[in-house]
Amino acid sequence: MTATAEHHPVSPVRLRATAGPGQPEPTPDLEDLYRGFEQELLVPLWTEIGDLMPTSPAPQARGHLWRWANLLRLAERSGDLVPVGRGGERRAIALANPGLGGAPFATPTLWAAIQYLKPKEDAPVHRHTQNAFRFVLEGEGVWTVVDGDPVAMRRGDFLLTPGWHFHGHHNQADFPMAWLDGLDIPFAYQTGSTFFEDGPEQVSDHSTPDRSRAERLWAHPGLRPVSQPGPQTSSPIAAYRWEHTDAALTEQLDLETEGHPGIVEPGHAAVRFTNPTTGGDVMPTIRAEMHRLRAGTTTARRREVGSAVWQVFDGTGTVQVDDRSWHVGRGDLVAVPSWQQLTIGAETGLDLFRFADTPIFERLNADRVQVEGAPS
Amino acid sequence: MTATAEHHPVSPVRLRATAGPGQPEPTPDLEDLYRGFEQELLVPLWTEIGDLMPTSPAPQARGHLWRWANLLRLAERSGDLVPVGRGGERRAIALANPGLGGAPFATPTLWAAIQYLKPKEDAPVHRHTQNAFRFVLEGEGVWTVVDGDPVAMRRGDFLLTPGWHFHGHHNQADFPMAWLDGLDIPFAYQTGSTFFEDGPEQVSDHSTPDRSRAERLWAHPGLRPVSQPGPQTSSPIAAYRWEHTDAALTEQLDLETEGHPGIVEPGHAAVRFTNPTTGGDVMPTIRAEMHRLRAGTTTARRREVGSAVWQVFDGTGTVQVDDRSWHVGRGDLVAVPSWQQLTIGAETGLDLFRFADTPIFERLNADRVQVEGAPS
Amino acid sequence: MTATAEHHPVSPVRLRATAGPGQPEPTPDLEDLYRGFEQELLVPLWTEIGDLMPTSPAPQARGHLWRWANLLRLAERSGDLVPVGRGGERRAIALANPGLGGAPFATPTLWAAIQYLKPKEDAPVHRHTQNAFRFVLEGEGVWTVVDGDPVAMRRGDFLLTPGWHFHGHHNQADFPMAWLDGLDIPFAYQTGSTFFEDGPEQVSDHSTPDRSRAERLWAHPGLRPVSQPGPQTSSPIAAYRWEHTDAALTEQLDLETEGHPGIVEPGHAAVRFTNPTTGGDVMPTIRAEMHRLRAGTTTARRREVGSAVWQVFDGTGTVQVDDRSWHVGRGDLVAVPSWQQLTIGAETGLDLFRFADTPIFERLNADRVQVEGAPS
Amino acid sequence: MTATAEHHPVSPVRLRATAGPGQPEPTPDLEDLYRGFEQELLVPLWTEIGDLMPTSPAPQARGHLWRWANLLRLAERSGDLVPVGRGGERRAIALANPGLGGAPFATPTLWAAIQYLKPKEDAPVHRHTQNAFRFVLEGEGVWTVVDGDPVAMRRGDFLLTPGWHFHGHHNQADFPMAWLDGLDIPFAYQTGSTFFEDGPEQVSDHSTPDRSRAERLWAHPGLRPVSQPGPQTSSPIAAYRWEHTDAALTEQLDLETEGHPGIVEPGHAAVRFTNPTTGGDVMPTIRAEMHRLRAGTTTARRREVGSAVWQVFDGTGTVQVDDRSWHVGRGDLVAVPSWQQLTIGAETGLDLFRFADTPIFERLNADRVQVEGAPS
Repeated sequence: MTATAEHHPVSPVRLRATAGPGQPEPTPDLEDLYRGFEQELLVPLWTEIGDLMPTSPAPQARGHLWRWANLLRLAERSGDLVPVGRGGERRAIALANPGLGGAPFATPTLWAAIQYLKPKEDAPVHRHTQNAFRFVLEGEGVWTVVDGDPVAMRRGDFLLTPGWHFHGHHNQADFPMAWLDGLDIPFAYQTGSTFFEDGPEQVSDHSTPDRSRAERLWAHPGLRPVSQPGPQTSSPIAAYRWEHTDAALTEQLDLETEGHPGIVEPGHAAVRFTNPTTGGDVMPTIRAEMHRLRAGTTTARRREVGSAVWQVFDGTGTVQVDDRSWHVGRGDLVAVPSWQQLTIGAETGLDLFRFADTPIFERLNADRVQVEGAPS
Repeated sequence: MTATAEHHPVSPVRLRATAGPGQPEPTPDLEDLYRGFEQELLVPLWTEIGDLMPTSPAPQARGHLWRWANLLRLAERSGDLVPVGRGGERRAIALANPGLGGAPFATPTLWAAIQYLKPKEDAPVHRHTQNAFRFVLEGEGVWTVVDGDPVAMRRGDFLLTPGWHFHGHHNQADFPMAWLDGLDIPFAYQTGSTFFEDGPEQVSDHSTPDRSRAERLWAHPGLRPVSQPGPQTSSPIAAYRWEHTDAALTEQLDLETEGHPGIVEPGHAAVRFTNPTTGGDVMPTIRAEMHRLRAGTTTARRREVGSAVWQVFDGTGTVQVDDRSWHVGRGDLVAVPSWQQLTIGAETGLDLFRFADTPIFERLNADRVQVEGAPS
Repeated sequence: MTATAEHHPVSPVRLRATAGPGQPEPTPDLEDLYRGFEQELLVPLWTEIGDLMPTSPAPQARGHLWRWANLLRLAERSGDLVPVGRGGERRAIALANPGLGGAPFATPTLWAAIQYLKPKEDAPVHRHTQNAFRFVLEGEGVWTVVDGDPVAMRRGDFLLTPGWHFHGHHNQADFPMAWLDGLDIPFAYQTGSTFFEDGPEQVSDHSTPDRSRAERLWAHPGLRPVSQPGPQTSSPIAAYRWEHTDAALTEQLDLETEGHPGIVEPGHAAVRFTNPTTGGDVMPTIRAEMHRLRAGTTTARRREVGSAVWQVFDGTGTVQVDDRSWHVGRGDLVAVPSWQQLTIGAETGLDLFRFADTPIFERLNADRVQVEGAPS
Repeated sequence: MTATAEHHPVSPVRLRATAGPGQPEPTPDLEDLYRGFEQELLVPLWTEIGDLMPTSPAPQARGHLWRWANLLRLAERSGDLVPVGRGGERRAIALANPGLGGAPFATPTLWAAIQYLKPKEDAPVHRHTQNAFRFVLEGEGVWTVVDGDPVAMRRGDFLLTPGWHFHGHHNQADFPMAWLDGLDIPFAYQTGSTFFEDGPEQVSDHSTPDRSRAERLWAHPGLRPVSQPGPQTSSPIAAYRWEHTDAALTEQLDLETEGHPGIVEPGHAAVRFTNPTTGGDVMPTIRAEMHRLRAGTTTARRREVGSAVWQVFDGTGTVQVDDRSWHVGRGDLVAVPSWQQLTIGAETGLDLFRFADTPIFERLNADRVQVEGAPS
């Protein structure tokens, strides 16, 4: 898939002596030395250090915008041409960051795809160690069945399929449905930590309950079932419903109006989806949040170690990543690479979904944040 | 450096419709759809799933052996041709895994290099967020000065330079010295979490104490200075001396002889270097251990999520990684990719140093181990 | 207050030589030795070990029942005779376990009291390191103002005042209100970890919002404000409303009816109030739960290290502690000492509030549970 | 044992109406109300709050000194009169704090006793959930056998018997030996968390190794056996040898002389005994430390939540607790109640052993420290 996947019958190392600061004199002896390195599969630090160890992150991934309208059009066309079933598994079409050589990686760690299911279709059951979620921009009628528990999908809902849970989907409606899938596929792929297992080709339970059993047990504020054991690796809440997310954001802005704390910065409310058994992120590698900006708000300029993908849920505005800027509307997706500066401006009231790989860096003590232009 | 670093004036996505299980019919319409994907920087899951989501890890990295004699010869030659100083920073020559496209990555996450310092040379002071250690196969006479504390380097010692600590080296001897450097450079590079800062070009303190101040404070078994605060991100023990490591391994084998527990498996003793403020690994991304096998011992066949590099410290034997096997002796280095099966056989008594990226997976709840042929 | 508080002008140690298993021969020499112990303030282990180190906990506290009707009657009478104000601070009347020498300790660690506030009264503002909660059996009209945030109190609500938060109460209604106060006063008293500070004599804010600001920020299932920092010592949810607790219990029993897991044992649903920033107990020393039994259910016989207090919220049934049993109804309170066997039988549907000191033992690795007669 | 242990055929509650700030008018009606409280086993807060909720800890325990010479003399006399065996279990004589009513409690949470074993005696094997250690002021010749592992006891050694480990002792020497036992008996007793089980009457292994197997596996600085699982509740290091403790203290004072950090305050070195699997305290309820003061040093005035016991290991000096002060020498023991101010002055060089219940408060988020007169 990427160039690094090619087979190398001979050494893949290629070195070239160059004149430059900190570099040895490019002499025939040096060239000879470099040939020796190549033969022994060795690379010196001194030729690579500028690339490998920059003074701050210089990711190959780039800030990039994908238009929802284009994604949806191509997903619909895929609905005509591509069946859903065992082998291909999902009718999912992933963002390929222009800096990552054509790989289906929105960022070096994150996968983001539009998934499309036609009326009465089933996506077959499987499980994998990659952590997954779905976020619903629009539509309804699909249930994702996670370890046998049918979870309804509706606009604004954030739904979890943590690693190694069996899951399939079924569309009970008379119309197709498309949504956003987010996973840590690139991270698992790069680090070699991927396991996958097939389940049945059809989901076991085509029932259509309004709420999942997981929600009925777990989605009560501050309450947990006494019967369930201690901290869990990932959140047991299968679905975070829009009504709760919307209410929490509304309250934050109301509290701001009343002069009380709660917002992130003026005009900017935000909630994080959390694992109620730990208070931490929903899954070990993925942070997910919903943000709401009042019309006219511009966020502080923020850099973070780690990458993120944002999707506009409602409203219009501007997203700027370093020196590139896009006007965005409903469904549009932007990839934000590590340490690139992000600012968002709200034209109308603006709701945005965000997911990021921050938990990886926090758990490895490599997180860092820089905020400029923050209100004093 | 790698192909993915190239600039792409046009979309880097290249898709080809193929017939195959789980694939849509390769028709002109499908080709047309794929052109649409390319144009929009999109990649479907169904063409990539076999590569991206294998049933178990299928890393691009390969098991590979590097001979210490060859590394040392090329390092010595570099000593003739390559100065040490600001810009190039270190006379370090890194292992390039044959499956990783020529990048100086021993594995997808780990850097391993031979570093070489000539008599009276200074390696300039810098700091970086990458976590680093040194392991000394042979020689002495160099002090690494970590945040102003000179740390002697001697055969068998394991020395730490955790992320963001200033450090330089100086060789006070009349002969050169070479050692092994281990870092998490590839991991930090791939994930975009790299910061670097220059310090002075010369180390500030050329004194040559037998033990560092960090050791004098911290390297007492089970004791900690009351003056020092709680858990620390990385171990404050600057040097783990061979005399202690050797004694601990000797005790384990003696306990085995006496019929008491302590060894990993028959004939196989092992200690892990730990952070005394947490009991965990020395640094957030790197596990380091010393193993000792009695002559004639063969280890159980073991797979782990995550990759490792082994270096023979003493003795001779055989290292087998999946279906490849090498006869190894002092200083030889072997890269072990994720989930490949490792077995080590000891011809003579065999001491091996090992470092691995396991803490990454343990902290992200993605660790998995499989042991076959373990003694019942 | 207790006998141990008396002043001892001479040594309080009193020893008596006795014949018995494991005891030395009671001779004049031994008596002489014991006089020496007394003089030097020493006590031998061998005379005390049976009391101090029993084979399983033999607490001095006893299982005991207090009738709500009696508490309420005396509280009302206190309303006539005892003002609320600085110095006395609260019109609160505490349960005194019959085994604890007259001290106002429901158990060796827990305080439980009825508090009573008349129309238009204010309870003055103070703070203390003791952790406190309120549970409302009946009534409404009082707001507890916690760090300036007015929190309405209504039937079934569970409200928090974690250690060192300023708080006062005001009754805005035209009728009095009584509720249950729970604290860790005995634990803090015995261990000498008590701090107390006066605030204003009147609460600062007599407003009467339906929900507190803390709830508006925090009481959304699985959501946390991005603006608020990491784990907090105690839950930031000021009030756990009955509507949520009731819904969660109802769901568990419904899931049981549908054949799905979630309940503790047949006919027995239970939720624990938790700190959403950790998933753990609401406060460091106190666990709080709500239990619901279907009519006719009898719980398994259960012993736990640590003590608890139960209050009937609704319904009638039987509570048995070791060999004592009481018929109970709305508001009745039962103290359950450490390791005494508890069984509850529900005559009607039965809702019970429970609080316990279990977090102390879990955090100190001294927790132990034994369940007998549990359904297989 | 204490007055609270008496049986109460009638209510133990006794209330008396008094005039005073914050108290209701003492009228016949009030007396009548108080009789009602007594009958129902109730105690009002308003009469008790001054005692129960002081502005800072007002412990019943007092600062007190016990002279080692007196303890040893009485222990020797006990050696003549009191056998060691099943039932009495140990020839141990405990400090009884003068404020605690004659109970064998050095402080409300801590037990401290001198234990005495004659030549060739065995103390029988048992286990209990209480955490225990031994500290050796002088002598040798006894082995404590912990879960079958014989641990030699020598001057300056600190030895562990964490909760629920079987242990017995045997004296192989031709002379008696006495040492300090420390446990959390009072805490376990007050909270009802005590389990006890007999083992054999004789220890199983009378061998006399120089070092225990636990030390051989675990007492290597920063190294852990790979074969041993993760964090352990208590330290697996059975003995912390004086040679290491002494060396660590010496280094701290040497570093001070050289101008480097490491000491607690000028002239004051200190090490904490820790659990190498966590970096935390050796046992869940007990902190243990060794302190060394240069001659002429006076420590800052320090208050802490929680209580401690100090024993002079070597040298002479002064210990002041609030307004009481004692001149102390080898072996003398001082109890320091919660929040009382401690200052130590060293006449000669002064080594002191300290143990405290601080982990209880740290784990329950109730720890607090105040230092006055600390050097700026």
